[in-house]
Amino acid sequence: MTISGLILFAHGARDPVWAEPFEKMAQLIKAAQPELPVVLSYLEFMTPSLQEAGHQLLKKGCTKIVVVPLFLGAGGHVRKDLPQLMQELKSQSPQVNWLLQPAIGLSDEVIQAMAHAALKQVAMA
Amino acid sequence: MTISGLILFAHGARDPVWAEPFEKMAQLIKAAQPELPVVLSYLEFMTPSLQEAGHQLLKKGCTKIVVVPLFLGAGGHVRKDLPQLMQELKSQSPQVNWLLQPAIGLSDEVIQAMAHAALKQVAMA
Repeated sequence: MTISGLILFAHGARDPVWAEPFEKMAQLIKAAQPELPVVLSYLEFMTPSLQEAGHQLLKKGCTKIVVVPLFLGAGGHVRKDLPQLMQELKSQSPQVNWLLQPAIGLSDEVIQAMAHAALKQVAMA
Repeated sequence: MTISGLILFAHGARDPVWAEPFEKMAQLIKAAQPELPVVLSYLEFMTPSLQEAGHQLLKKGCTKIVVVPLFLGAGGHVRKDLPQLMQELKSQSPQVNWLLQPAIGLSDEVIQAMAHAALKQVAMA
């Protein structure tokens, strides 16, 4: 049986307030799919790291772990740092199916929502 | 009469492919509201800068210019760099109403779209 888990991977920042939209997003996912283990993780400044998040999901028995980069574009962090971190997880736990997804900002529905939100900001300004 | 213009302000990256989702977003906005002047601008690595975008909209006669930061969270670029750049524009062209909006990623519809897109990625993985 496949047990799926989800890691949301964000950049991180010094100010804890920065993480609030990502925490809200994780809450929405948990509300929509309470049986899916979800961990929010960070590249820098915040914890847990991708490694720690991976270990949390391993402990929960996940056999397929999907990593979604919470970045608007696919820059160096998504194209270089993240695949390297994924490779470490794969080497440490090759029995698990680790799946790296494209940056969330490449998704059409996110692009559409941003366009809509920007137009709303203009209308209300 | 108020003539509104919109500046979308993104981080920028060395790889031109990085800007594609932002360009798509600008196209969606232009399609939805063809009469609204829209310029995509960047903090670094790409052009035009916020200054140059501002001047483009001034030349089009805009009297109210709304700046929407295309960032998922409000980190240092949004909280420090951008207000400073806005201040320069305001000092240079005080006759224009320059309006800085919150980061697009703080908008509920963007957060919801990201949550939905992430769940779709898990389902399809």
